[in-house]
Amino acid sequence: MSTDFTDSHTTALQLRSLITADGRLQVSLEPVPVPEPADNEVLVRLQAAPINPSDLGLLFGAADLSTLQAGDNGDLPTITARVPDAAMKSMAGRAGQSMPVGNEGAGRVVRAGASPAAQALLGKTVAVIGGAAYAQYRAVPVEQCLLLPEGASARDGASSFVNPLTALGMVETMKREGHHALVHTAAASNLGRMLHRICAKDGIALVNIVRKPEQVELLRSLGATHVCDSSASDFLPKLTDALAATGATIAFDATGGGPLGGQILSCMESALSRRGEPYSRYGSSTHKQVYLYGRLDARPTEFRNDFGMAWGMGGWLLFPFLQKIGPEGVAKLKQRVADELSTTFASDYAREISLAEMLQPDVIAAYASRSTGQKFLIDPAKDLPALPGL
Amino acid sequence: MSTDFTDSHTTALQLRSLITADGRLQVSLEPVPVPEPADNEVLVRLQAAPINPSDLGLLFGAADLSTLQAGDNGDLPTITARVPDAAMKSMAGRAGQSMPVGNEGAGRVVRAGASPAAQALLGKTVAVIGGAAYAQYRAVPVEQCLLLPEGASARDGASSFVNPLTALGMVETMKREGHHALVHTAAASNLGRMLHRICAKDGIALVNIVRKPEQVELLRSLGATHVCDSSASDFLPKLTDALAATGATIAFDATGGGPLGGQILSCMESALSRRGEPYSRYGSSTHKQVYLYGRLDARPTEFRNDFGMAWGMGGWLLFPFLQKIGPEGVAKLKQRVADELSTTFASDYAREISLAEMLQPDVIAAYASRSTGQKFLIDPAKDLPALPGL
Repeated sequence: MSTDFTDSHTTALQLRSLITADGRLQVSLEPVPVPEPADNEVLVRLQAAPINPSDLGLLFGAADLSTLQAGDNGDLPTITARVPDAAMKSMAGRAGQSMPVGNEGAGRVVRAGASPAAQALLGKTVAVIGGAAYAQYRAVPVEQCLLLPEGASARDGASSFVNPLTALGMVETMKREGHHALVHTAAASNLGRMLHRICAKDGIALVNIVRKPEQVELLRSLGATHVCDSSASDFLPKLTDALAATGATIAFDATGGGPLGGQILSCMESALSRRGEPYSRYGSSTHKQVYLYGRLDARPTEFRNDFGMAWGMGGWLLFPFLQKIGPEGVAKLKQRVADELSTTFASDYAREISLAEMLQPDVIAAYASRSTGQKFLIDPAKDLPALPGL
Repeated sequence: MSTDFTDSHTTALQLRSLITADGRLQVSLEPVPVPEPADNEVLVRLQAAPINPSDLGLLFGAADLSTLQAGDNGDLPTITARVPDAAMKSMAGRAGQSMPVGNEGAGRVVRAGASPAAQALLGKTVAVIGGAAYAQYRAVPVEQCLLLPEGASARDGASSFVNPLTALGMVETMKREGHHALVHTAAASNLGRMLHRICAKDGIALVNIVRKPEQVELLRSLGATHVCDSSASDFLPKLTDALAATGATIAFDATGGGPLGGQILSCMESALSRRGEPYSRYGSSTHKQVYLYGRLDARPTEFRNDFGMAWGMGGWLLFPFLQKIGPEGVAKLKQRVADELSTTFASDYAREISLAEMLQPDVIAAYASRSTGQKFLIDPAKDLPALPGL
């Protein structure tokens, strides 16, 4: 069912997610007009786009995937699922709006706006950020592009933004907030391994927290020094040892729910008290910070404060961080990503799928499991469904 | 049992709290040398010292007050109680150290060091901060004194620091962190009523959260506009209404444990979403902050994040805040306290007790209950136990 495809088409496919006010999720491929790039924009024919954990939230919302049903809309596949009533409150803001999905991707610039910066990218392979990447075409402002180094493919550059800038953002946040070492959870993920490589290269001590013994092995095989397994019975004392050894007082936690954030603060406090500061009933005066940047653990966040008063917990998100550091700060980070794309910032993919395969229930079951080592890459140019007029 | 008392004594009484390594709390009155003031210090004969909630933590630690037993050490009373084994970890830093208690108080300067600033205070009535205020004498650096206005008694000035500077510190933190209105819990407390008076005077919108219907009445009788009762069935919608009306995006929570902090963030998010920002799966981009400054609720802190990614929770403590704003900032706040001591910063006391009465089980039961309207004042010069050599 592949289709001969040229850039002269005026209509192309885009993946869309819709949650209706009565609690029905529909994901579909929709023919949409190929956009005309504005002066400072380029039109990118996408060739590779990763499925990041952060994409799944928009793609499926609060839908219960056990109710998923495959359907079709003519030649194009669709899926539907129910959103539980209790979850509809949190979906109210998007109800009835058909939304494009896909934070990032990479492809070839096939048209460019009039500006010199846009024209300079014509014919080049670029990574892009800004949403709607699960599509055949995307018009993107030049600032949201990263020119890939000579010889790098779209596949090499597909994950140039979200994971690399998140990992660099964590290190930058650590420095700006006056900490000297850091903690990361879900540390065996693509992002976690990238953060390990950055810290190893930059000489920053990193405490890796994982959830399974085999992930300890994986990280050790990559050269990680401090790896703590939260499923082990001696997790808390081992974590305290690692925190005492590194002096880490800031953590980035992908699990979000459950007790882990509080446990990290508590162990940081124990590690600090080993230094023998004089007793204060308010605890150590050293500020301890945990940023929750994901929600892998769906339980409520819970802690019993035994870590004094000098602590903070909060959300951390890439885009507000990038706004905070401003265009010059962002440009520096992007340049580093381009310079080290095939080393520090290399991503692994378990499987490459087409846009149509994204809507197959068995494929969804695999990529929605968010398992370590199960990162999927979409090739929007692959196996296109036959579409009248395309 | 009162004793004739002059300032020529070299020994005087001080209240001490000790937790032994084997889990026994002992609170006692100890004869200690009357300190000689250093160059920049004054010696204050204390005449009034409040029992603040923040004093109880040091006074009783994690002891189980249901195991409290009265005793004596010669003429001087003592009490003892057990610290549960599970709580001893958090007491490790103070185990075996006899600690003086009492954050603040007021009294007359009876001796002064050589510095002009110290000499200027000789014979004056001052409020003092810095610990060890449950004592007959205390030597204090001049910076930790506040000269009370003409005509103000030690009783009037006993609570010049902790509550006034905490309430002013909350308003100052609100401004420095870019918020325009604030939320306060346990709002019927002395501190809460003080904050209400500050906000009313300064034209700042304040959302008061209380736990009982009669506290709603109390605050309304004082002129409060927004008062929400967390025991009411419509607490969350009413809180959301008040947050929407005021635009408050920062809260100071004295309860610390339980769901309240998360509920406030959640209602802030709902209030923000009424403004009709475009949908983002990351929630509103407006930062929402809850500072936990007390621990009236002993349950674990728990929340289910339905308030997006732009949020923070953390400890808030007066002394680090004062350090952050520096000596000039502190001097400004202190001046305001002195100027409005009998109006904005007036405190009410339910009962006045002696140092010896502090160690009577029935009195402890009353002041340790932390009930609204049950603030106690200690007069260290009252009913002194007969002490050989004093």
